[in-house]
Amino acid sequence: MGRRHIIGVMGGGTVSVGDLAAGYDLGRRIAKEGWVLLNGGRRAGIMDASAKGAADRGGLTVGILPDDNDAGVSEHIHIPVLTGMGSARNVINVLSSSVVVACAGGAGTLSEIALALKHGKTVITLNFDIGRAFDEYRKAGRLLAVESPEEAIERIRNVLDCADQCPDPQKH
Amino acid sequence: MGRRHIIGVMGGGTVSVGDLAAGYDLGRRIAKEGWVLLNGGRRAGIMDASAKGAADRGGLTVGILPDDNDAGVSEHIHIPVLTGMGSARNVINVLSSSVVVACAGGAGTLSEIALALKHGKTVITLNFDIGRAFDEYRKAGRLLAVESPEEAIERIRNVLDCADQCPDPQKH
Amino acid sequence: MGRRHIIGVMGGGTVSVGDLAAGYDLGRRIAKEGWVLLNGGRRAGIMDASAKGAADRGGLTVGILPDDNDAGVSEHIHIPVLTGMGSARNVINVLSSSVVVACAGGAGTLSEIALALKHGKTVITLNFDIGRAFDEYRKAGRLLAVESPEEAIERIRNVLDCADQCPDPQKH
Amino acid sequence: MGRRHIIGVMGGGTVSVGDLAAGYDLGRRIAKEGWVLLNGGRRAGIMDASAKGAADRGGLTVGILPDDNDAGVSEHIHIPVLTGMGSARNVINVLSSSVVVACAGGAGTLSEIALALKHGKTVITLNFDIGRAFDEYRKAGRLLAVESPEEAIERIRNVLDCADQCPDPQKH
Repeated sequence: MGRRHIIGVMGGGTVSVGDLAAGYDLGRRIAKEGWVLLNGGRRAGIMDASAKGAADRGGLTVGILPDDNDAGVSEHIHIPVLTGMGSARNVINVLSSSVVVACAGGAGTLSEIALALKHGKTVITLNFDIGRAFDEYRKAGRLLAVESPEEAIERIRNVLDCADQCPDPQKH
Repeated sequence: MGRRHIIGVMGGGTVSVGDLAAGYDLGRRIAKEGWVLLNGGRRAGIMDASAKGAADRGGLTVGILPDDNDAGVSEHIHIPVLTGMGSARNVINVLSSSVVVACAGGAGTLSEIALALKHGKTVITLNFDIGRAFDEYRKAGRLLAVESPEEAIERIRNVLDCADQCPDPQKH
Repeated sequence: MGRRHIIGVMGGGTVSVGDLAAGYDLGRRIAKEGWVLLNGGRRAGIMDASAKGAADRGGLTVGILPDDNDAGVSEHIHIPVLTGMGSARNVINVLSSSVVVACAGGAGTLSEIALALKHGKTVITLNFDIGRAFDEYRKAGRLLAVESPEEAIERIRNVLDCADQCPDPQKH
Repeated sequence: MGRRHIIGVMGGGTVSVGDLAAGYDLGRRIAKEGWVLLNGGRRAGIMDASAKGAADRGGLTVGILPDDNDAGVSEHIHIPVLTGMGSARNVINVLSSSVVVACAGGAGTLSEIALALKHGKTVITLNFDIGRAFDEYRKAGRLLAVESPEEAIERIRNVLDCADQCPDPQKH
């Protein structure tokens, strides 16, 4: 394989059934596009669901784990990267992703949205209402809200097309 | 000296004159209480102002730097901790603080609020409107909003008193 | 794909032509076994050579970069993981590998040998004389010295076979 | 206080009584010079002994902990910096120190010697035989071996004097 786009999927470890279904569908669609799915790698919530979605569709999945061992890794993660660094791995999640999709989550997911925006990434929230904390980024077109995995894919495609046309060393 | 409470002061590198003045005053008051001030350590914005406030009042200041060298360290930081880890150091800022005060800032400061709440810390925002992204923590009494450094100190004192009475290994 | 063994290949950014050739051959042989090759990901020395060897043979390559952008990534790395954490990423290299092979290198490679041994990994040095600093691990059978990529593969196979027979949550 | 030199003291968590005594004496002498002592912060081995030595002599002690909580912090550490990053904190230990003294230890201490040398620091081993792994640094005068805390202090003084005369942004 050659280098492929890596799409980060963030989201909570404990979320609703509807959010899990959306995470699974998003993973499936990411794989269908030929992109690599990257997430937090744990056997829980959006991480597990999105990895299963991508793996079921034949995609490649990378998990950036907070742990120093693989006891909690989702079985749907093909490449577990063990950091042993706890929440500091959230930074790696966003730096390594071409685009970040934030599904429903809590403070951990919000930290990833913040770090992604700080480091120049485009963030797409999928059914995740984050109020107006990041409105300056929304106005700048770097924070987008969508309501379905299908719409998320469309937005990711736009961002990747734009990045291909106007290369920027910060966004791979 | 013995072990003293460490108060984290977060905030942006580029902020208004009013916010700088509040950061300076907050630092001064933290030192007056005998607490150690911890922040991001750079020679900019709230970091520099709050360190200067604390140092001017005879307090001890600790800076957790993103850099691997001391070129950008505020001259008001007594103990520069050089991480070379970029934004991953934001996690250290909040883990090492007994209480986190978030002054005006951008996405970096928002990531620190998120990480602090995720790791069980109480966060006090000082004239920093963050919308309703973290409302569940507000309801739980772990996210407080104040309008003056004086009021911030009062709230910090309450948190520390409570922690002393009901010791919790997560909060030192 | 399912979960596959990840083999870490460490080594210097500036090494001899003979060491580069050994790194390339090692990468090729790792791919031939169906294992994933993980290294430091940069376009230099053993990292570049071993990634090229594995990629040329159709293998999958993962790079754990010290940088926060992809400017220095080897073109033979399929999955660049950008940490922005400088040398702290050395820990991730070894935690994420089932076995670590240390080719010729300098202080960075020695730090990875030390960290790998500390975290319970088996380390195989390939034409890299490290004196007797780690002799206690040598006696315990966790530090092995080999003189050819072929021999390294044989030793890796032994370690993986043993791990499969006596599962240990520390070694995935 | 103003900015003071920070001396890193590395060493194992389980060492001999003689090594503990040397660590304690080294800490005491570091404090006597007016320097800040920085170490790994845990309530064990060289970390605990050197912190006690410095604190008993009225010095200031900083501990960079691998943990995300303060359960294992030495009582002789005044400023516990909680990283939650495991061994990745070893990088912080060496980057934050003007000079690194390596007392007797194991693979963790060896990783700190390697990282310190990689990042341009001078390392002084105190009764710690590390073979010839790092001989190129020994020849370059950046790796020194001493046999007593007294001699270590003398060597540290030389390094600091030299750094003051030929300022280098890499060494603070």
